[in-house]
Amino acid sequence: VSVTFPGGFLAGATAAGIKPGGQPDMALVLSARGPVPAAAVFTRNKAAAAPVQLSRAHLTATGGRAAGVVLTSGNANAATGPQGYRDAHELAGLVAEAATARVEEVLVCQTGLIGIPLPMAAVRRGVAGLAADLTADAAGAERAARAIMTTDTVPKTASVQGDGFRVGAMAKGAAMLAPDMATMLAVLTTDADVGPEPLQAALAGAVDRTFNRLTVDGCTSTNDTVVVLANGTGRSVSQPVLTAALAEVCAALAEQMAADAEGATKVAVIRVEEAADDAEAHRAARSVAESQLVQCSLNGADPYWGRVVSELGAAGVAFDLDRVSVAYGGTTVCAAGQAVAHDAAAVAGHMAGRRIEITCRLGLGSGSAAVLTTDLGYGYIDENRTTS
Amino acid sequence: VSVTFPGGFLAGATAAGIKPGGQPDMALVLSARGPVPAAAVFTRNKAAAAPVQLSRAHLTATGGRAAGVVLTSGNANAATGPQGYRDAHELAGLVAEAATARVEEVLVCQTGLIGIPLPMAAVRRGVAGLAADLTADAAGAERAARAIMTTDTVPKTASVQGDGFRVGAMAKGAAMLAPDMATMLAVLTTDADVGPEPLQAALAGAVDRTFNRLTVDGCTSTNDTVVVLANGTGRSVSQPVLTAALAEVCAALAEQMAADAEGATKVAVIRVEEAADDAEAHRAARSVAESQLVQCSLNGADPYWGRVVSELGAAGVAFDLDRVSVAYGGTTVCAAGQAVAHDAAAVAGHMAGRRIEITCRLGLGSGSAAVLTTDLGYGYIDENRTTS
Repeated sequence: VSVTFPGGFLAGATAAGIKPGGQPDMALVLSARGPVPAAAVFTRNKAAAAPVQLSRAHLTATGGRAAGVVLTSGNANAATGPQGYRDAHELAGLVAEAATARVEEVLVCQTGLIGIPLPMAAVRRGVAGLAADLTADAAGAERAARAIMTTDTVPKTASVQGDGFRVGAMAKGAAMLAPDMATMLAVLTTDADVGPEPLQAALAGAVDRTFNRLTVDGCTSTNDTVVVLANGTGRSVSQPVLTAALAEVCAALAEQMAADAEGATKVAVIRVEEAADDAEAHRAARSVAESQLVQCSLNGADPYWGRVVSELGAAGVAFDLDRVSVAYGGTTVCAAGQAVAHDAAAVAGHMAGRRIEITCRLGLGSGSAAVLTTDLGYGYIDENRTTS
Repeated sequence: VSVTFPGGFLAGATAAGIKPGGQPDMALVLSARGPVPAAAVFTRNKAAAAPVQLSRAHLTATGGRAAGVVLTSGNANAATGPQGYRDAHELAGLVAEAATARVEEVLVCQTGLIGIPLPMAAVRRGVAGLAADLTADAAGAERAARAIMTTDTVPKTASVQGDGFRVGAMAKGAAMLAPDMATMLAVLTTDADVGPEPLQAALAGAVDRTFNRLTVDGCTSTNDTVVVLANGTGRSVSQPVLTAALAEVCAALAEQMAADAEGATKVAVIRVEEAADDAEAHRAARSVAESQLVQCSLNGADPYWGRVVSELGAAGVAFDLDRVSVAYGGTTVCAAGQAVAHDAAAVAGHMAGRRIEITCRLGLGSGSAAVLTTDLGYGYIDENRTTS
């Protein structure tokens, strides 16, 4: 179940011809009741793509309301100059026309190659196909989730049944903000009754503790976007409850993205505890998670904790090697900054698995954080060495 | 020619048995005239290895003087606790005894695996072998340069004949400070007549514009060290002249390190021009140079400039995509933030070479910087997925 899990939302997809291979490449998520409260978190990249600039402007213009989100895959419409912005605007206008909404009430998400003009003939044809495919059933939402895939091998969806409200979601990609491989897009829907401001706060809180704790290669895309629409047909929900529900679907999507990351064979959770504070714990965990050397060790199932303590020492946080311990899957391999005798077979068994847990205790305070990452192996290089 | 190029320095090496394979693994560079002005730049990693802590303390204790530098390879003596420091101190003491110097006048550099106790029986035997091998001829310096290699495939040496003074140098590894693959160590010698303070300033200046402009994987080692000894038998040299000479040998060593980086098939120079200032240019160039996606593109000889502008936009510097241009080997592929028609064959020819130049102009000011990097391919993963 996905974006149509809460009532009052329609979804659909089409193969417009943006992708050369003829796969589905356009998706639409529409509120059946017209414009509703909406919120979004966008990439911090200063080379933000045209759809990011447009959607940000639209949300500002409407004061946080939207009727729908149109998504395309195969072309990022990034580094495409003023024409790229005009193209994104035209796309939003065509969708608005089909949905009987104003152009400012349509948000646009795009993903794919950078620097190539958007093929507008295909896009124009696609809008008609999208409108014809819209449905409230689960199959339409499934088609939409598939249509936004690029290097993804499986669609990513999640849902939560709250107390009197529902959240549904779909996503593509492998990261957000700090991270990114090939742009992360996510659309969430909910029937919770909530205004634009608490909705924005809840989304930002949920993203911070989920997508922003996932890194694959430390790259920040030009197009990363997370959008939520809230149609208010369910009950009124407090901001903490809504934040928790949105975080639950975002966490599920983040796990799916890590597991499906380009060429990855392993997912690793890097936990840092006993840091000076939570922010330093996050920084240290990210430093370990983004280390090419650590990621190579994960690929080789090698519990070389020396690289972990080296990254912790280089992370720019309060650090005293003599207080540091490191555990792989619960087995401590380093204590007081030195090797300790341990059950090597237990560690080897843990490293051989698909999910690896590394816990680092800094011995300084009560700050803690966890960051999700993947290994670095041939698969990543095969995916990324050429675009053709 | 290497560290014995200036008169008054001796060098030698031995196979002590630190490396399991019986290759040379200890080297010594000694001033023939006893203690002389010395300076060093060390890693900023807070998990700094015992030899870094010891050498820093020794230079402070002597006010910037040293009689020699002993180097070992195969074991980093990092994350080895108080015993590691005692071991480094004992090594310095044994060398001091053999050289009729005080223990504080001996500096120690070590490189290899982290977290493993230093095999002191081998180290003690090695010091006797080192003393017996010392010579002022070029062959001794060559043996020393080979003995500090770890994953290096060739020894790295450089020299400069100045106006009335000489500089010689040897190094191992692939980076410094921001970067590192497997620790970077370098020893420079000169007969320039200079006191400890201008020597330190000259070395810091030279390192900043050379080793600190090289990155392979963004990792900062626990052991990175650059040392210079100046015996004053040549003429007195101004600090700018000395800085330039030291930078010349450091630049030559940095190029050798990039060319020999683990598994690298290409070296790339990332230039950023027209940034708001030099510091922002450096930050932006480093952001592009450290990008796994850019490095994968280099491996595949793919001129995908979209990744380059995305990294520039994420670098945290002043940035306006509409003003950005990107050129590969002098051929502009992106101008005003968009694709431009260009000679694709010329770009393909440039990308097929071993040395790639990418120039990014931000159109904002007069800041410029260049950072040296490598591609990311199977070779890096093969080297680093396991330590065994």
